[in-house]
Amino acid sequence: MITSSANPRIRRVIQWRQKARERRADGVFLAEGFKMFEEAPGELVREVYVTSGALEKAVSRPVLRKKLEEAGYETVTEELFSKMSDTRSPQGILCVLRQPVYRLEQMLDRPDPLLVVLENLQDPGNLGTIVRTGEGAGITGVIMSGGTVDIFNPKTIRSTMGSVFRVPFLYVDSLDEVLSKLRGRGIRTYAAHLEGSRYYDSFSFCGGTAFLIGNEGNGLSQGTAERADEYLKIPMEGRVESLNAAVAASLLMYEAHRQRRSTGN
Amino acid sequence: MITSSANPRIRRVIQWRQKARERRADGVFLAEGFKMFEEAPGELVREVYVTSGALEKAVSRPVLRKKLEEAGYETVTEELFSKMSDTRSPQGILCVLRQPVYRLEQMLDRPDPLLVVLENLQDPGNLGTIVRTGEGAGITGVIMSGGTVDIFNPKTIRSTMGSVFRVPFLYVDSLDEVLSKLRGRGIRTYAAHLEGSRYYDSFSFCGGTAFLIGNEGNGLSQGTAERADEYLKIPMEGRVESLNAAVAASLLMYEAHRQRRSTGN
Repeated sequence: MITSSANPRIRRVIQWRQKARERRADGVFLAEGFKMFEEAPGELVREVYVTSGALEKAVSRPVLRKKLEEAGYETVTEELFSKMSDTRSPQGILCVLRQPVYRLEQMLDRPDPLLVVLENLQDPGNLGTIVRTGEGAGITGVIMSGGTVDIFNPKTIRSTMGSVFRVPFLYVDSLDEVLSKLRGRGIRTYAAHLEGSRYYDSFSFCGGTAFLIGNEGNGLSQGTAERADEYLKIPMEGRVESLNAAVAASLLMYEAHRQRRSTGN
Repeated sequence: MITSSANPRIRRVIQWRQKARERRADGVFLAEGFKMFEEAPGELVREVYVTSGALEKAVSRPVLRKKLEEAGYETVTEELFSKMSDTRSPQGILCVLRQPVYRLEQMLDRPDPLLVVLENLQDPGNLGTIVRTGEGAGITGVIMSGGTVDIFNPKTIRSTMGSVFRVPFLYVDSLDEVLSKLRGRGIRTYAAHLEGSRYYDSFSFCGGTAFLIGNEGNGLSQGTAERADEYLKIPMEGRVESLNAAVAASLLMYEAHRQRRSTGN
C-alpha cells in the first residue's frame, strides 16, 4: 500500500491531474470513479489506484473485480487518494489511461458523417457535455481548434460520463484546412450565428453535416464563420442574446438525429 | 471609498455570497458584472458596489452611468472587491437585489402555459442554464421542489445571463400538490423517464405543458414520476444512459417551441 504523497508515482498522478502540459508530454489522462473505470477500454488502462474501501465494494461486483485483476492495481490510503482526486466525494478508484489518437479519415470514411467543430471552447464542463450529448445523438466525431480547452481535463472527462471513450475527437492546428477538407468531401458546414436568417430546423441535416460552435464569450471568429456554407439561427424569445454553447450544440445535434430518424437514415 | 473587509456592509455581502440561509433570511441576492447590473430591474436593486476601474468604464456608457446614479453606489478598492466577488476575473461591479416573489397563479393565468418542474436538481450551473434556455424557448415559469439548489446561488445567477430577472420561478414544499393543481387546470405533465416508450417529439406540446426534470444522479423520485400524465423518452445512441439535466430540459423546451412556432401558437 502506498501511503506517502512523496511517492514518485503519486506525485506524477497529481501533476497529470493539474497540468495539461504534463498529460500531453506523457500521452496520458486520468479517469475517476467506478463507472469510468468499468467503461474504460482495457487496452488504454495503464495504472489503477484504489482505496481499501473501494476494493471492498468491488468484491460484490465480479465484472469489476475481474477488470481490476487484469489491469493490476495499487492500493493507497483514503487520505492519499483525496490528494490525487479531483472530486469532493471521491469514489476511491482512479485510473491512468493512454490518450487515444484518432485520424480525420476515420471520422469521414462513412456515409453522411455528423460532425461537431469547436472553435476555442473554454469551459471543460461544456466540452464534456457536448461529447456526452454527441454520443447520444449519434455524432461521428468532434473536431477542435488548438485553442479549445483540453479534452483530457479531469472535469471534462468526468462530464462526458464515459462518452470520451467512444466518441472520436481530434485537435487541429488549422480549422481552415479542415473546413476545406470537409467541403471536398461534400459535407455541409453550418454556423450557429446571430446573422443567420433561417431557423435551424428548416435545414436538412440528413447528408454529411458539420456544426460549427464558437467560444462561450465571443462566438465563432469571423474567419471561421465566413467559411461556413450556411448560417443558422436558433430562435430566442425574451431578451436572450445567446444560448450556452453546450445547449446550442445539443439542440443542433438532436435536430439532426430527429431528421435522420424520421427519414430512416 | 470602503477599503476594509471589516466594514459591516462588506461582511454582510460576503455572507450573502456564501450562504443561502443568510440570503433567505434577508430576502436578497447578489448579481455581478455590467450585463447583470444593466438588466437588473431597477426596483429590485438595493445596493451597488463598484471599483474605480469599473466606474471609469461606465463613463463612456450613458445608460449604465444613469442607472448607477439612480441606484446610488459605494466605491470599494480592487482588493476588497475581489473578496466580495464570486468570480476569478471580477468586472468590478456587484449589486445586492431584493429576491422577487412570484405566485403560481401568475404562471397559470395565460393560455397554454409551458412550465418546467425541477425535482431536487443539485447543480447551480444546470439550474441557471435551464432558466436561460427557458427564457429563450418562451417558458412561462420554473417550479422547483424545496430540495432544489438555491436559484440565488451566485453561480446560478451568473449562468442565467440575466434571464433570472425575467423568468418567473417558485419553490414549493410539495410537488404533489402543484401537480394536482396543474392537472386541475388541464396542463399535461411529461416525465423524461427511462421507462418512456414514446420519443419526446411524438407528443404534442401545443396545449398547456409541464416537463418534469429530476435530480442529476437519481432522476425523478418514483412518487413524482407516477404522478406524470406521460413518460417520454429522449432517444440515445451508443452507450449513453442519460443526458445532462440541463440538456434534457433544453431539448424538451425547444421541441415545444418548435411545435408552437409551426402551429402559429
